[in-house]
Amino acid sequence: MHKFTATYTDLYQINMAQVYFQQGKHKHKAVFDYFFRKLPFKGGYAVFAGLGTLLEILEDFRFSKEDLKFLSDYGLDSEFLDYLKDFKFQGSIYSSQEGDLVFPTRPVLQVEATMVEAQLIETILLNILNFQTLIATKARRIKKSAGDQKLIDFGMRRAQSLGAYHASRAAFIGGFEATSNVVAGKDFGIPISGTMAHSFVQSYDDELTAFQDFAKSHPQNTILLIDTYDTLKSGLPNAIKVGQEMKARGEEFKGIRLDSGDLSYLAKQCRKELDEAGLNHVKIAVSNQLDEYVIRSLKDQNGPIDVFGVGTNLVIGKPDAALDGVYKLAFANDKPRIKLSENLAKLTLPHKKQVYRIRNEKGELIGADAITLREETQIDHMNHPFDRSKSLSFSNCSAEPLLSKVMENGKRLVKSKSLQDIKSYSEKRLSELTDEFLRFENPHIYKIGISDRLLEERERLRNHYKN
Amino acid sequence: MHKFTATYTDLYQINMAQVYFQQGKHKHKAVFDYFFRKLPFKGGYAVFAGLGTLLEILEDFRFSKEDLKFLSDYGLDSEFLDYLKDFKFQGSIYSSQEGDLVFPTRPVLQVEATMVEAQLIETILLNILNFQTLIATKARRIKKSAGDQKLIDFGMRRAQSLGAYHASRAAFIGGFEATSNVVAGKDFGIPISGTMAHSFVQSYDDELTAFQDFAKSHPQNTILLIDTYDTLKSGLPNAIKVGQEMKARGEEFKGIRLDSGDLSYLAKQCRKELDEAGLNHVKIAVSNQLDEYVIRSLKDQNGPIDVFGVGTNLVIGKPDAALDGVYKLAFANDKPRIKLSENLAKLTLPHKKQVYRIRNEKGELIGADAITLREETQIDHMNHPFDRSKSLSFSNCSAEPLLSKVMENGKRLVKSKSLQDIKSYSEKRLSELTDEFLRFENPHIYKIGISDRLLEERERLRNHYKN
Repeated sequence: MHKFTATYTDLYQINMAQVYFQQGKHKHKAVFDYFFRKLPFKGGYAVFAGLGTLLEILEDFRFSKEDLKFLSDYGLDSEFLDYLKDFKFQGSIYSSQEGDLVFPTRPVLQVEATMVEAQLIETILLNILNFQTLIATKARRIKKSAGDQKLIDFGMRRAQSLGAYHASRAAFIGGFEATSNVVAGKDFGIPISGTMAHSFVQSYDDELTAFQDFAKSHPQNTILLIDTYDTLKSGLPNAIKVGQEMKARGEEFKGIRLDSGDLSYLAKQCRKELDEAGLNHVKIAVSNQLDEYVIRSLKDQNGPIDVFGVGTNLVIGKPDAALDGVYKLAFANDKPRIKLSENLAKLTLPHKKQVYRIRNEKGELIGADAITLREETQIDHMNHPFDRSKSLSFSNCSAEPLLSKVMENGKRLVKSKSLQDIKSYSEKRLSELTDEFLRFENPHIYKIGISDRLLEERERLRNHYKN
Repeated sequence: MHKFTATYTDLYQINMAQVYFQQGKHKHKAVFDYFFRKLPFKGGYAVFAGLGTLLEILEDFRFSKEDLKFLSDYGLDSEFLDYLKDFKFQGSIYSSQEGDLVFPTRPVLQVEATMVEAQLIETILLNILNFQTLIATKARRIKKSAGDQKLIDFGMRRAQSLGAYHASRAAFIGGFEATSNVVAGKDFGIPISGTMAHSFVQSYDDELTAFQDFAKSHPQNTILLIDTYDTLKSGLPNAIKVGQEMKARGEEFKGIRLDSGDLSYLAKQCRKELDEAGLNHVKIAVSNQLDEYVIRSLKDQNGPIDVFGVGTNLVIGKPDAALDGVYKLAFANDKPRIKLSENLAKLTLPHKKQVYRIRNEKGELIGADAITLREETQIDHMNHPFDRSKSLSFSNCSAEPLLSKVMENGKRLVKSKSLQDIKSYSEKRLSELTDEFLRFENPHIYKIGISDRLLEERERLRNHYKN
């Protein structure tokens, strides 16, 4: 749907690029890390999402003629603008797999490119990955509460404008089964779902006729919204009547939807009356300000609910609404780089790096990822990244490298995966975490450490720049 | 930048439209209200934004061939799909002016169109107006704290994906002066702003050379980021050196930026040393998780700050992150319509309507908007919309109609206003509110009422549908 050009960026990227160009530094090689500092939703993990979107955009990220005209009017140097005319991202990307579990501090992805390339893609990279990772994580939390029940994304109207588009993509990765968002269905192959609004019922002089007309038009997809006037006194009896008419015609009445009131109580009443009317197969869908906590409560009350429609709280990633992902220089012009900070946790990690997931001799996760220099291929000890008194040794463990090259010379190395494959991979990875990491309240903390060599290098640079 | 087609919608809109088409109801006229139920941020007002974006989209909101193919594969009726081929919004829109103050319950906008048209535009209307109104309101709150100081939108990287685009538009309406978002600058004419990131300084072997190179490349736009290594020991002295070099060359060093640490303390130190070095004109910009409260605190501490760069909290509209705007049927097929609810506050208001802003004999606001039937041209009494014991009479008052026709037969009736004009209008309207409405803590409540005739009509319909 969307056509991006390279002006989808912060101005400072372009202003810095002009300096690099004028100083002959534009071809210097740089390495940037993408990582975040805090898990969203006070949770125990995050689900990495957005990589497929990003790579697709990067393959064709250029300045249009109109862009160059605008930048010329803004006052950029004309030789630099000539250079931008042919700008195209031709770097490499080392990344975690989309759908994998990711944790704070450790690089989720590394970009290796010229200074100019790496800088010009920063904003869109952060914009795409921060948001989809936030939403996939939120969706996965909601899915944990929903269990085997089906989840549908209803959020488009409350999404942050065009953010709706990628919210639906990320929600599917995080465990949703369908979306109301038609363009997301079309572009991403997500199953689409939707039946009627209150306005449909209101537009008729009576509710029954509204239901009957809908059933005639959509005999295979009849889900009736029964709370426009009175759920139990009007909506439910009318729905049951239509269900029985459909049955008599040999059609299958699919379900009812509740969008207000006490959802658990109403679902139980509806289930009882539907069953008594011989409509046992008819499903009950509910919506109205749901999130992982409300759904958990509905399940605790044994509400006989088959489908949850989740809107606002999903697509805006309530309450966090943003992931604090950053993009930091780790290597430039053949030298490792670091950013100092009075806040130790904001020190960056220099060098090209690899991240290893540690497993015990049975192949089970021990709950630790270790960050190393890229050339390190073995690791049996890691240090707390910020607390010098803490370290962790692991013997008889194996280390799975998590970053692999997914783009080279600006071209994807592997065909993009289907969203279903990404979701399945994510579920497999998640199934390796024990319940303690999955709980909502004060989850177990997944450990992140750095290798001895990386620690040494960071301290060396830190002392260098302090003096 | 973006090309929308009519699949930017919830599936149920299309499924309902098929029923209307098959039942010959697709040409029935409908009236829908757009309104919200709760002011964002526990504030005293909201700033209406997004109208210009919406109208532009609606003038060319159609299904593409690809859309129709997708919907055909989904299983829609072929005659209905033929009808959709020529679908185009040809209705009318009555709206508040963009930038005006808006309040809960009262229609912000009314759509008059065929049932199918009105339904198919619902999702994009809510998606666009909810978000921009949220962000313009947030921006206006931040502007209240910033006072005469300049505000720049830095939020693109943390925005909800493509939501970044309209966030910058709405932030400008709400009082921001510039944005880092280049494409928003290009498409909306917002001044763009940006200089350097930490990575720029890091990419050099020393900070001073980085600053010098930048100053050479951007002599008219040199704002140096001074906290990469050590703000007071390294960044500031290096910036002062560059400032003096620029001065010697007859150039003007524009400013420094602080992005970490105690911003008030550091700004004071920087101001002192800059002044002592004869760089009195050099501005101090700060950023780092700012919002209306942090900026208020910085001002309370007399931090000598000239420019505030605001990112995440602005562009995602923290903490609310969504406005709860809804779109409700008020009239269809020549009859007024209503939706009942066990929750009285969720009762809808039937009929074509007008909203009046009440002013006393001096022309000052009394803090009340009254909702009437559209044909009512006078109002001197209004009723609380949900509490029958409350009403308000106003004598010697004038009533300003707030909704005017902005689109007819799917065409805009007036040329779209510039963002600057919208912002100025918004500021004029805001200046009419007394301070009690503007405060952040428990602001004064702006009163919304309904006319006697509208109340009577609502009660009549309510009784009708209850029986």
